[in-house]
Amino acid sequence: MGGDRAPGDVVEGAVEAHREGANLVLVGDESAIARELEARSATDIRVVHAPQVIEMGEDPAKAIRAKRQSSISICGDLVASGECSGMVSAGSTGAAVTAAVLKMGRIRGVERPAIASVIPFPGHPLVLCDSGANPECKPRHLAQFAIMGALFSRHGLGVDDPRVGLLNIGEEEGKGAALHKESYALLGAYTGRLPFLEAPAPEARESTIYRFVGNVEGYHLPIGAVDVAVTDGFTGNVVLKIVEGTAKAVVVELLSVLSSGRDARQLSELAGDFREVKRRLNPEGAGGAYLLGVKGTCVISHGSASPNAIKYAIKYATQTSTVALVDDLTRIFGRLKDAQSESAGEDAGQGGKVAADASW
Amino acid sequence: MGGDRAPGDVVEGAVEAHREGANLVLVGDESAIARELEARSATDIRVVHAPQVIEMGEDPAKAIRAKRQSSISICGDLVASGECSGMVSAGSTGAAVTAAVLKMGRIRGVERPAIASVIPFPGHPLVLCDSGANPECKPRHLAQFAIMGALFSRHGLGVDDPRVGLLNIGEEEGKGAALHKESYALLGAYTGRLPFLEAPAPEARESTIYRFVGNVEGYHLPIGAVDVAVTDGFTGNVVLKIVEGTAKAVVVELLSVLSSGRDARQLSELAGDFREVKRRLNPEGAGGAYLLGVKGTCVISHGSASPNAIKYAIKYATQTSTVALVDDLTRIFGRLKDAQSESAGEDAGQGGKVAADASW
Repeated sequence: MGGDRAPGDVVEGAVEAHREGANLVLVGDESAIARELEARSATDIRVVHAPQVIEMGEDPAKAIRAKRQSSISICGDLVASGECSGMVSAGSTGAAVTAAVLKMGRIRGVERPAIASVIPFPGHPLVLCDSGANPECKPRHLAQFAIMGALFSRHGLGVDDPRVGLLNIGEEEGKGAALHKESYALLGAYTGRLPFLEAPAPEARESTIYRFVGNVEGYHLPIGAVDVAVTDGFTGNVVLKIVEGTAKAVVVELLSVLSSGRDARQLSELAGDFREVKRRLNPEGAGGAYLLGVKGTCVISHGSASPNAIKYAIKYATQTSTVALVDDLTRIFGRLKDAQSESAGEDAGQGGKVAADASW
Repeated sequence: MGGDRAPGDVVEGAVEAHREGANLVLVGDESAIARELEARSATDIRVVHAPQVIEMGEDPAKAIRAKRQSSISICGDLVASGECSGMVSAGSTGAAVTAAVLKMGRIRGVERPAIASVIPFPGHPLVLCDSGANPECKPRHLAQFAIMGALFSRHGLGVDDPRVGLLNIGEEEGKGAALHKESYALLGAYTGRLPFLEAPAPEARESTIYRFVGNVEGYHLPIGAVDVAVTDGFTGNVVLKIVEGTAKAVVVELLSVLSSGRDARQLSELAGDFREVKRRLNPEGAGGAYLLGVKGTCVISHGSASPNAIKYAIKYATQTSTVALVDDLTRIFGRLKDAQSESAGEDAGQGGKVAADASW
């Protein structure tokens, strides 16, 4: 029921995904969805009725608690009960994040679930994590975002040895605010061989979760300097939106310059080329934003997502690699948590300092 | 002496500005500059010798204190002594900011000098303040950035009634981190008629410093929703660089799509159009970054600034409106400081609360 053109466009995308083999359930107003399905001769998709809807302006935490029969709440319930392995929403990001965290629950060891978004820079798709779930962060949260973003880059985009950078305002260590100065060392700690994975590592490539390349600046991101950029959710969200806005503004300006002084045939050629560029710069193929760190898959589509974008989001959510990502996150954060508990136990006699060091 | 191609390109730009009437002094290695001036038959420009240079990697605060004979230190001295009204540098931003703050000094009432940068979004130049001087800020700093950015928009870009927005991750009040929630009210306080300017206001238009339009998101900036976006120096610097990088990446991608399948004549036409777009998207005409809140003009050019960009920066720094901007900042922040002192004095008997409210 979420999204600017729901339920029509959402059902349209779902029907397409279903026809391409996705196994899905639609959650929302039963009669409205049934009408859309009938119009598309796709009455074989199961519908779960949800009488309530959370509006865009509502406070997410209050709304999720108050509206237990909203479509997003019931989606969360279906994943929590094991009936579904994940959920897709084109509604309010805040409501989807809250429903996922409250209903599915956090993976053991994950302090702050984070949103990974894929920015489709030409030739260099970039994973930005966190891109909106946590406006205020501590260094140990950024260290967790690095691990989650890197695992997403592997499973979601097929990058074997992801390069992770800390988004900063200078390349040298020691740049930025206190958050970045302190995060630098934590992110670097996971570059090398991880002690708790040393033996027996189930797969060799997992002995290193990612390669930390240090600080990266804004102009490094579009040219593929890293596969994953780690940042707090405030900066990440601003970056996501300013990139989208800037790309649009540049395309519009180019089109206006190129249109002048060209004849009809040339203009029609140009229009085709611009469609191609828009397709390349369009995040639809990437599917949306991915909430990482909860016990299940949660994909959040743009509110203005087209049927095609919805189809991609559903196809992503039903891939086996997506299920594997949740398994990997569970295994790796579980081990980190174990290592941390052991270390806190062993060093209990030495006072508070070691426990604080291991606190992340 | 600062910049990737100094002193050659810097002298080239200075000579051009000089020929267009700018009254300037060159500060740096006397013999190297003399050679460049002779090669351009421009030996009538005065040179002040500076035997030391601050390199890009050096810690700015230490370097300015240790190298009193560096070109940037001597520039600051020349402004502090009143011999010059401002300075222009293409060297390290950190060194220029430190030299300006230490040598010229802060304007009375300004807590944190900030960098205003002009982003040349097509048809909608945007002032971004702070864009790099203060990676960590308090709400009262953002309130000062709003006033400084608005006065810069008036004097530097000729905007009569600047619209100011707080860069945030949602439009509604209450969005963002604690910094943004608290800054929102402070920025709003200067929207209406300012009590301390009520009578006698020297010019009617100054009774309101700016119009606060509320929170703005990343995708509002390229479409001209505000004239000034206020943010902390970390976010501002990331935005500045990601916009530059994204615009470049989109132009390169478009050129690659448009080039395929076109003949030599069409390609040459295209090349001309792309030069035009690059010119429109190029920040050179805007001159660089402007440090606001110090007792004099300080323009910081890009390290890779072309002679043309240097020329614009010098011409900007020598405009009468630039001197008027420093005067206006001095007058308005002086009045704010007076109002604050009076209010603190009057209410001294009422305990700490009022003093804290008036603390900015």
